[in-house]
Amino acid sequence: MTIPRRDLDFQVFEVLDAVGLCRLPRYSEHDRQVFDGVIDSTYRIAEERFEPFAAACDVEEPRMVDGRVWMIPETKQAFTAYNEASFTAASFDAEDGGIQLPLLITKATSAVFGSANVAFLSYSTLTAGAANLLISFGSHDQRERLARPMLAGRFTGTMCLSEPHAGSSLTDIRCQAIRQDDGSYLLTGNKMWISGGDHELAETIVHLVLAKIPGGPPGVRGISLFAVPRDRINEDGTVGSENDVRLAGINHKMGWRGTVNCVLSFGEQGRCRAELVGLPHHGLEYMFQMMNAARIGVGMNAVALGYAGYVHALAYARERPQGRPVGARDPQAPPVPIVRHGDVRRMLLAQKCWVEGGLALVLYCARLSDEERCATDAAAKESLHQLLELLTPIAKSWPSEFCLEANKLAIQVLGGYGYTRDYPVERLYRDNRLNHIHEGTHGIHGLDLLGRKVSLQGGVALRALAARITETVELARADARLAEHATALAAALAEIGKTTEILAGAMTKDSERALANATLYLDSLGHIVVAWRWLAQGLAATRAQAVPADRDFYAGKLAACRFFFRYELPRIQPVLALLRSLDDTALTIPDSGF
Amino acid sequence: MTIPRRDLDFQVFEVLDAVGLCRLPRYSEHDRQVFDGVIDSTYRIAEERFEPFAAACDVEEPRMVDGRVWMIPETKQAFTAYNEASFTAASFDAEDGGIQLPLLITKATSAVFGSANVAFLSYSTLTAGAANLLISFGSHDQRERLARPMLAGRFTGTMCLSEPHAGSSLTDIRCQAIRQDDGSYLLTGNKMWISGGDHELAETIVHLVLAKIPGGPPGVRGISLFAVPRDRINEDGTVGSENDVRLAGINHKMGWRGTVNCVLSFGEQGRCRAELVGLPHHGLEYMFQMMNAARIGVGMNAVALGYAGYVHALAYARERPQGRPVGARDPQAPPVPIVRHGDVRRMLLAQKCWVEGGLALVLYCARLSDEERCATDAAAKESLHQLLELLTPIAKSWPSEFCLEANKLAIQVLGGYGYTRDYPVERLYRDNRLNHIHEGTHGIHGLDLLGRKVSLQGGVALRALAARITETVELARADARLAEHATALAAALAEIGKTTEILAGAMTKDSERALANATLYLDSLGHIVVAWRWLAQGLAATRAQAVPADRDFYAGKLAACRFFFRYELPRIQPVLALLRSLDDTALTIPDSGF
Repeated sequence: MTIPRRDLDFQVFEVLDAVGLCRLPRYSEHDRQVFDGVIDSTYRIAEERFEPFAAACDVEEPRMVDGRVWMIPETKQAFTAYNEASFTAASFDAEDGGIQLPLLITKATSAVFGSANVAFLSYSTLTAGAANLLISFGSHDQRERLARPMLAGRFTGTMCLSEPHAGSSLTDIRCQAIRQDDGSYLLTGNKMWISGGDHELAETIVHLVLAKIPGGPPGVRGISLFAVPRDRINEDGTVGSENDVRLAGINHKMGWRGTVNCVLSFGEQGRCRAELVGLPHHGLEYMFQMMNAARIGVGMNAVALGYAGYVHALAYARERPQGRPVGARDPQAPPVPIVRHGDVRRMLLAQKCWVEGGLALVLYCARLSDEERCATDAAAKESLHQLLELLTPIAKSWPSEFCLEANKLAIQVLGGYGYTRDYPVERLYRDNRLNHIHEGTHGIHGLDLLGRKVSLQGGVALRALAARITETVELARADARLAEHATALAAALAEIGKTTEILAGAMTKDSERALANATLYLDSLGHIVVAWRWLAQGLAATRAQAVPADRDFYAGKLAACRFFFRYELPRIQPVLALLRSLDDTALTIPDSGF
Repeated sequence: MTIPRRDLDFQVFEVLDAVGLCRLPRYSEHDRQVFDGVIDSTYRIAEERFEPFAAACDVEEPRMVDGRVWMIPETKQAFTAYNEASFTAASFDAEDGGIQLPLLITKATSAVFGSANVAFLSYSTLTAGAANLLISFGSHDQRERLARPMLAGRFTGTMCLSEPHAGSSLTDIRCQAIRQDDGSYLLTGNKMWISGGDHELAETIVHLVLAKIPGGPPGVRGISLFAVPRDRINEDGTVGSENDVRLAGINHKMGWRGTVNCVLSFGEQGRCRAELVGLPHHGLEYMFQMMNAARIGVGMNAVALGYAGYVHALAYARERPQGRPVGARDPQAPPVPIVRHGDVRRMLLAQKCWVEGGLALVLYCARLSDEERCATDAAAKESLHQLLELLTPIAKSWPSEFCLEANKLAIQVLGGYGYTRDYPVERLYRDNRLNHIHEGTHGIHGLDLLGRKVSLQGGVALRALAARITETVELARADARLAEHATALAAALAEIGKTTEILAGAMTKDSERALANATLYLDSLGHIVVAWRWLAQGLAATRAQAVPADRDFYAGKLAACRFFFRYELPRIQPVLALLRSLDDTALTIPDSGF
């Protein structure tokens, strides 16, 4: 059970007008038929190749055998099917072997793949991210020799940032790269939390590794980026002997078990060859480009997991007979399906709000990325870039938090059965708990958003966001079914504006205090943004000329929109009041008072 | 790492005056020294016998071998140690082999045991509950022949309510008991979700089974209670041959794996002997007594799990160096322990609020149970009973919800490490997800509270609760450190009173609509009750003549109290407004609009 096609089509075509993107030169070869065909094969591969082993790769997780990673064989078959259909390369340039699909379409496909088997999908999305980094900042040779084989499914890629002693604190990394006379580098050090760090899916793995070149500036300004193939890659592009990268261990996780997560040791024998990517000491800057895409990817994975849980819970609720409606006293009346119970409906509708709202948020970011990528006017491009930078921590974090809540309620709908490993909802819940943690923790994104992004260049990005929200508000005011929500959103927007001003003012006096509740700010701004995307969905639903078969679909969208505005958006009021009070209780409690 | 002794002592002795209970005749043999001794041995056994295999019994969960349940051997050793120290019988009458300890003390001990290994603890708490039921409603013979050996650790007990086709809907159970000429019954049917349903810890297991006697009234009024030993128990109390109870399967759960959970099949060969307990057709009424105690027990387990997570997260945060304070720009300065970071402190303080607040709530209920049990005045006893009935769904549900949130944040404090199975926080999170489900789901308790208990007898119980809260509010108003909180609590109490009136009024017109958001009402009233218990803790902290060593402890209590009032209590405002609006979005969305 994957994300329903009806909602995907609604969001991609009715809300976000994917076909409109075909007016851009980059996408001018495409049309609705092409997009439909891509989505068709997405569902086919997701259902036939991904979903069938989602449970199996959780139970029989990758393990270390003779220093290498062993996985269940279905993994390789899925990898082949995915790459034969060119999904790794889907959004890349035609000259690199890609299909030049809009990111809006490829993100939608990754939502479907992720809802079928998120753990397996990671191998390919990491590879695409690494290839993108090499294409953006590497040499022509690296593009041809490393990136293109990655897009073709011959190689995979990883991101190697963290080290065992310093998770989020990249300034403290110890990996070293020493320049050799021939211009190459010899790399030494350990990396931790490397997803896809070793496996036999492809001919080799290209690790993109952050390391320091001795003599560089201290801290993050002394970090460089290196491409480190697990095996040497010959001049002719064939794969040669191994490159002194040792699989030092596998991390055993609560969930997301189908993605192997490794500790890697580089250069134990002093012969680990690394290629510098771009300029020395610019590694973190380059990596951030990949991380930003990866962060939106994390948000989509969180959505996919939450959505999969919702779909399972809904199917169960429609089939499981149990109990009788409130007030029905006759114990001999037949039981009703639990979808008829008010509290089950409330839980389903909350899930629907969160997962469809999260999907709307992330797809919106994908469309912005398309617009940014294709913008020809420098000012417009910059403005889109700033808006995306502002939305990235939200697109990563909001789904991590609220689609996990959806998974929690999906278990609840199934009751005791939901708590057993016989149903997928517990696995989805375990999987989704990762998303607050990787690619920057929830707390770090809060600091990034409140401490930096909302005030960059005098707050231009937040103003641009507010202008877009206001535009939707004005449209919605004209519709009686949405006017109440439009008013609520305008009020919330004004309130977070005021709150942001107070916090920005406090930053200059006592930044620690101003940022003490940055995570709550992140969640609250996220709620406003998602409310906006619900209003946009509401507008699309009211615009739709519903054929009878679709009438309930649109009624459901309007109900979910209303639910978000009545149950979710008001939750931020006390939080914003708290933020304005600059409460410092957590900072001032004595350390030994915990 | 278990619940810290300092907090346990604070809550049991300073807030709830356990020693004061010794004025009651039932507890007059006890004093502080006795209680201290019991708590000493609790910690010793919890740390030496329970905690060491908490991880092992999760990894190597019980399994079926030759039709019986196999467990790791540490389980049996812990069972022996626990029973040799008389903990199963601790709160029971001396004549039944018990120690007549106050429930306040035994609940405190179970918090400690639960924080060490909740899955193992279940075997004994279920046994105590079953013994209590037999003592309350069974015959003298059943008390001697079945209950006393359970308290002595020779037998264990279970509750067999649910059946595979009807989880929460007991009206639909199909188990049948047919009376034989000798007065005994032959039982047939299947039972599902039976914790402790089979194992080799004791000589036999006494299942307390709900079943219908043919010809009885329909629905729940036709349910009777039976004692069904797995093996026949001879007249002389020895255990004889097996009693046609077959282990039909084991449920494989996400967490709480150390407690075996079974499907049992009774009477496949037509020779499963059952003894009626009490009168025919009164089974559910009897079982509710056990369930109410079990529900408070569930709340305590949720607290224990959340608290254990907090303790681990705190220890990690104090030891793990990473990153630098906000605003510290020198990358060469040494990293600080993460407990110095604002967001980590916020997460720790939120956990502290939830778990210590939950502990305060459940221990308060335990003290009320002591008062009820010992009350000599019938009216006072009835009033205590009503108050406890009102608080029971809250004591079960609030910790299930918010101590799980604590577990979620404990993982977050540990970051990537917290997501691995190398640390206990992920297991605690998996374990705690059960507590919303068993012993009545979260939703069912919402209906029970709002649909029944707040309005029983004109709302007498809610008024009694309000009077107690107001008493604490008045005391706290006099202290400058607490006056702000006292005012907030009084306002919240008034608001939920108004909300309850509106909902009660709506019940008569449209009960389904009035109850549509009953779960949110449950959570909100829970927040008010816990705020009250935080105010009581605040009062105890201000009263304390702090020796220097304790100064930070009390400062921490006051900080956590303030945090609860500033971060948590205000969250209910938009929820209460929503409840008053009688929103019916979830009821009116078309079924195919999900």
